Amino acid sequence: MFTDEYFMKMALQEAQNAFDEDEIPVGCVIVSNDRIIAKAHNLTETLNDVTAHAEMQAITSAANFLGGKYLINCTLYVTLEPCVMCCGALNWAQISKVVIGARDEKRGFISKNLTLHPKTEIVTGILENECGEIVKEFFKNKR
Amino acid sequence: MFTDEYFMKMALQEAQNAFDEDEIPVGCVIVSNDRIIAKAHNLTETLNDVTAHAEMQAITSAANFLGGKYLINCTLYVTLEPCVMCCGALNWAQISKVVIGARDEKRGFISKNLTLHPKTEIVTGILENECGEIVKEFFKNKR
Repeated sequence: MFTDEYFMKMALQEAQNAFDEDEIPVGCVIVSNDRIIAKAHNLTETLNDVTAHAEMQAITSAANFLGGKYLINCTLYVTLEPCVMCCGALNWAQISKVVIGARDEKRGFISKNLTLHPKTEIVTGILENECGEIVKEFFKNKR
Repeated sequence: MFTDEYFMKMALQEAQNAFDEDEIPVGCVIVSNDRIIAKAHNLTETLNDVTAHAEMQAITSAANFLGGKYLINCTLYVTLEPCVMCCGALNWAQISKVVIGARDEKRGFISKNLTLHPKTEIVTGILENECGEIVKEFFKNKR
């Protein structure tokens, strides 16, 4: 039951929440021992704050839940490839695994030749189409 | 009166506050029209939160003060070269100017071949010795 697709669907629901609030639709969950310990969606417009990406909020929330700043044995499921800021934060958090839905060739960390922490396993392409489509749909409506 | 050195001294005072709280001593201020609109120091240990770097807090605080997420006509004075995470956040904020005290060859964004926003002017080396010394002193005490 607790597959990567299962948790990415939860992250997609968060992206949908962002979409419904007229935010760029990116969502994520952080999972520890098959349990969701944090979930968040992009809130940069609502909060007037460039740092309010889904991942940043979820990292803070998960650390708060765990009572420690390192996200050991935690997996982040995020619908869109993290940006430079979120990549840096994930590095500091030494998170164990990052599962990415759609790639972000322009703003994502991979094309900047950045890497995550050596301890961090990366999986890409989980529900890639759904995760990418919701972003495309958002910007199509903006045109 | 309102020189780069003047505002870097304010940032150094924030770094000293961090030092006194047993935090890695990095401080910053954000200035708009010669007025300090945000100041912060590293609080990662106190808050158990890797995202609580001085710059991140100050960006959120300045945007809150301005009522908008872009830090137009704002200058960040920071005692230590920003890391990848903070570089990413400063990019999103499109801040006008970043003034750096000491370099951080290992963790700083410059050696990662990252750049700030094309609109952002960068100045380095302001009170470099004082800004570097406080970090060295902190880690000397930890050994």
